[in-house]
Amino acid sequence: MPRSRTNSSPVSELAIELDRDDGEALHRQVEVSIRERIRSGALPAGIALPPTRALAAELRVTRGVVVEAYAQLVAEGYLTSRGGGYTHVSPTATVAPAATAPPPPTRSAAADPIVDFGYGRANLAAFPRAAWLRSVRRVLTETPDERLGYLDGRGAIELRTALAAYLNRVRGTNATAETIVITNGYAQAVSLLLGVLAAEGGATVAVEDPSASDDARPIADALGMKVVGVPVGDDGVRVDALADLDADALILTPSHQWPTGGVLSPAARAEVLAWSQRTGALVLEDDYDAEYRYDRAPIGAIQGLGPDRVAYAGTASKTLAPGFRLGWIVLPPRLVQPFAEAKLLADRGSPILDQLTFADFLSRGEFDRHLRRMRPIYRSRRDALLAALAEHLPELEPAGIAAGLHLVAWLPDDLDEATVIAAAAREGVAVAGVSPYRLSPAPRGGLVFGYSNLEERQIADGVERLARAIAGGP
Amino acid sequence: MPRSRTNSSPVSELAIELDRDDGEALHRQVEVSIRERIRSGALPAGIALPPTRALAAELRVTRGVVVEAYAQLVAEGYLTSRGGGYTHVSPTATVAPAATAPPPPTRSAAADPIVDFGYGRANLAAFPRAAWLRSVRRVLTETPDERLGYLDGRGAIELRTALAAYLNRVRGTNATAETIVITNGYAQAVSLLLGVLAAEGGATVAVEDPSASDDARPIADALGMKVVGVPVGDDGVRVDALADLDADALILTPSHQWPTGGVLSPAARAEVLAWSQRTGALVLEDDYDAEYRYDRAPIGAIQGLGPDRVAYAGTASKTLAPGFRLGWIVLPPRLVQPFAEAKLLADRGSPILDQLTFADFLSRGEFDRHLRRMRPIYRSRRDALLAALAEHLPELEPAGIAAGLHLVAWLPDDLDEATVIAAAAREGVAVAGVSPYRLSPAPRGGLVFGYSNLEERQIADGVERLARAIAGGP
Repeated sequence: MPRSRTNSSPVSELAIELDRDDGEALHRQVEVSIRERIRSGALPAGIALPPTRALAAELRVTRGVVVEAYAQLVAEGYLTSRGGGYTHVSPTATVAPAATAPPPPTRSAAADPIVDFGYGRANLAAFPRAAWLRSVRRVLTETPDERLGYLDGRGAIELRTALAAYLNRVRGTNATAETIVITNGYAQAVSLLLGVLAAEGGATVAVEDPSASDDARPIADALGMKVVGVPVGDDGVRVDALADLDADALILTPSHQWPTGGVLSPAARAEVLAWSQRTGALVLEDDYDAEYRYDRAPIGAIQGLGPDRVAYAGTASKTLAPGFRLGWIVLPPRLVQPFAEAKLLADRGSPILDQLTFADFLSRGEFDRHLRRMRPIYRSRRDALLAALAEHLPELEPAGIAAGLHLVAWLPDDLDEATVIAAAAREGVAVAGVSPYRLSPAPRGGLVFGYSNLEERQIADGVERLARAIAGGP
Repeated sequence: MPRSRTNSSPVSELAIELDRDDGEALHRQVEVSIRERIRSGALPAGIALPPTRALAAELRVTRGVVVEAYAQLVAEGYLTSRGGGYTHVSPTATVAPAATAPPPPTRSAAADPIVDFGYGRANLAAFPRAAWLRSVRRVLTETPDERLGYLDGRGAIELRTALAAYLNRVRGTNATAETIVITNGYAQAVSLLLGVLAAEGGATVAVEDPSASDDARPIADALGMKVVGVPVGDDGVRVDALADLDADALILTPSHQWPTGGVLSPAARAEVLAWSQRTGALVLEDDYDAEYRYDRAPIGAIQGLGPDRVAYAGTASKTLAPGFRLGWIVLPPRLVQPFAEAKLLADRGSPILDQLTFADFLSRGEFDRHLRRMRPIYRSRRDALLAALAEHLPELEPAGIAAGLHLVAWLPDDLDEATVIAAAAREGVAVAGVSPYRLSPAPRGGLVFGYSNLEERQIADGVERLARAIAGGP
């Protein structure tokens, strides 16, 4: 802070430029100009301003204009005035910070590849804007005023009702409007749920290894909870590892393991539930992409088998758009109240307009219509990816292909994952490895291909580039 | 859980009713029916189902229909099948919970009074639905696809830019798009900010006494932070109490103290900033209702005087609707990155559509237009309340009347706050007391009158009822 100069003589003039055609009152123009100079540091703390009469003469305005401007700035604390003496810049009026905030944290920050197989790049071009707008219009036209007020922590009853019907029908869940809470996407669901478990004394969270534990891990860290990994085999989490597992919660992707794509067998599902019943631990079922399946019958959610042991979390990020932040969680009844209280405490509930719009969209069948339209598109893209891999990279072994919006291709032993990814980047292809999702090292490398946001020719081009990159060697 | 009956003989029949005109495949009807019975407990865990041939004969369907239904339920884990033997209900398929979740936690839960002076009941009937819908339509028509993807933790640049311009113009803040973060209302802003301070080692939060510390207190408790009160005088927080205040953050409502309505004087603002500079503590300026002022010039935000010492939080809950959960915080530059990271961790950002809509609404002047329309309405309601109080309850002393959407009326010494509130309720009037907002007991009782959501005749009726209640005595 500049040294105080309260006792110095006043600055002689301020050279304020007034725009008499501006429409803005003159006293306001004077006020704005002085405020900006104080902020920029041009008028440092402690300095004395010209007497009102002098400044009025300089600016050719009436003295009242300057008096009014000074008075306002005194009221705001920029200036201090001790009756009779000069008006000074307040000693506490600090200089404006340079606009040098750090760059924004974003979820993914890649360069600009030519073909980007990154996952999470939903097919945003397919978002059904017209149908969504129709739902918004209906909601804004028909919703009673009082529904725009403070919210139920569980979310809008219309959306909870529509979701329960949808999930029970399509995902085999056992949900009612009373056991669903609406969240801002999956991220908030896992954040609040771990908070509730920690408050109950929960100390350990188990996650699949590999898994997308970037949602859960920093939250667990912040809550002082330990994160342990449970190994994943070809069919999802390896239930033989549950025997010795001491955890308060187990986060699973049973219908399509992320990232390896395995599907938990009926016997393994029963084992998971038996473990949960034996230990009292909660299972968090992350059903992140179950809407898309291609070559197999739908597998119902584990939650339907054990609704008092399993919390089921879903999201519209993969089906509509991540930016909508629409998520939901079906909870064991005993957890509904503490979870809804945690939601209220965190943000007083999710925005009502989005909730009511999605409820309308669901209950009019628009969501089903959208999914029916997208499934053949994604299936074709997957088929194009598989065909290109078979043609150009037959040494890779695709897995987890029957569902979802991505697949893993395992690398042969002589190809190093990091080397392949770096070579691919040089050929303009962005593709992720499995390793970053692992908690413990594993022998085999693999690549994660998201295909939902790429057209078939882009997919073919990307795989050809990748093949060139691999052929070129390290 | 029911005792396992794995070894019992199969149930003889299932009496499934098939609807051959339903359009739903028969195997699917069988599957749904069995799933529902397992869930309801009608088919208990461990029981054996009829052989496929027997059930097919009973239902007069081909055996393939039953085989398909059983296979699906095995895949989902409801049934278990050990090659050759009976198919059993899985021992882990638990019975559905009764739909007896606890009642929803809501922010306010009053009975149905005839006149409700409760604060926070925004004037929802005035929400500008048509203008909002126009903004939604423009956004849905014009927003590029990629903007619907994963989000910047600080919020949409369009909204941050529009808000910086608006707040600097109307509230005298010193904000840039780089120092604003969009939140789900004020509640999330204070929650995340306290989390950031706690992670930095912050241990104590100071709040005004009285104040609406129900936002901050449970969050501070959860973070293990101590909450201390700073007494409030007629002109807001008493700065003589700052000398001994040892806190990492001070939450203030300087422009219109909640609930007492005092306005912090320029000298007191300077004292607050000096305290903050001396101690390194952060000031959180809660500018909850500054858009509405009636008899005085606007008082700029303290944040404009000390942008590196003050975080400024605002909300559209009082101006548009609480259910929209639109809030913002202007941060000292050093806190932008950790705050934005905490926001991403909590929920990956606020919903994009609402943000872009509000940005359009702001930048087209719709927000200003809305406020201009509302100000005379609220002023008339306030005047009606003051007139009714002067006529029917002259012994009450209104305060904090120059701004906002509420006022406090102090009670004379011979009227007990709780007694008055109970008597008012019997006359059909809901009105809050000041005491629940106090951290330490104070001699004087007071009533908090929210008036924004009441028409003038309701206000007059409410005050007359209150006068009758007080005249009736305890």
